[in-house]
Amino acid sequence: MGLEAEIIRLSQELGEALAGRGWMAATAESCTGGGVATAITEVAGSSGWFDRGFVTYTNEAKQQMLGVSIDNLLRHGAVSEVVVLEMARGALARSDAAISVAISGIAGPGGGSDDKPVGTVWFAWVDKSGRHHSLLARFDGDRQQVRRQAVRQALSGLLALLR
Amino acid sequence: MGLEAEIIRLSQELGEALAGRGWMAATAESCTGGGVATAITEVAGSSGWFDRGFVTYTNEAKQQMLGVSIDNLLRHGAVSEVVVLEMARGALARSDAAISVAISGIAGPGGGSDDKPVGTVWFAWVDKSGRHHSLLARFDGDRQQVRRQAVRQALSGLLALLR
Repeated sequence: MGLEAEIIRLSQELGEALAGRGWMAATAESCTGGGVATAITEVAGSSGWFDRGFVTYTNEAKQQMLGVSIDNLLRHGAVSEVVVLEMARGALARSDAAISVAISGIAGPGGGSDDKPVGTVWFAWVDKSGRHHSLLARFDGDRQQVRRQAVRQALSGLLALLR
Repeated sequence: MGLEAEIIRLSQELGEALAGRGWMAATAESCTGGGVATAITEVAGSSGWFDRGFVTYTNEAKQQMLGVSIDNLLRHGAVSEVVVLEMARGALARSDAAISVAISGIAGPGGGSDDKPVGTVWFAWVDKSGRHHSLLARFDGDRQQVRRQAVRQALSGLLALLR
């Protein structure tokens, strides 16, 4: 199955899983730029399970919209486990959602370093019962390929936390 | 030129126009679900001109994230000129952006009425100097086609306000 078909299938499965529980979801996205929210809302009826999305592209947006601490941004960088966990928890606290996902990474072509090369993406998933999971991925490919692989990973992690 | 190619071209032109002015943009999206933010951030370097996006899918999100008044939501509905103007102004006030776009519509297949059939989409564009424009569109096609045409319109209206 191709990447795009998989994103559609995962979005549909996620909708069914959320509807089955009566849960709303929220997203907190940096490098994917709204791609996860777009995928979730591609499914008809998604107003029943999608509450809101925060596209926090700048550090200021991460602080102001999600309550990420300036201290963690300076100490660990925006692409770090501690920041994606803060983003996911901030999205849960500032919404009516019961589950959230946060994504922060380096889509390229610029912005990479030895430590965090292009394709480095951190994910965090959190639910209202306190369960959480985080993941570091290193995707291959160009900017668009990194972003689309990150969207797929974000969706599949939401499904995994729901099951 | 196909719709997808046009969205890419408009996103690139928008990036150049924003960078040329030193302006950041913000988005406030309902029915497009983050598709406009995703298109803008598909362009490499977009962290230089994209500040943040608000994906306000529920009425509560429109109120809490953008300051849309419950009174206007009840009186005019979420898909109305007064609400998209409030959304666009709210995005400008709650960001570091100098220009914003708001989109609220009925992507379908459900949610249509005689008054506001599927494909009805309201747009508003606002900049920091107080210039603003609003538009009512009625798009043909299925859910995905309505959403993609709305993304194209949102981008082209941003460019028009910038020029």
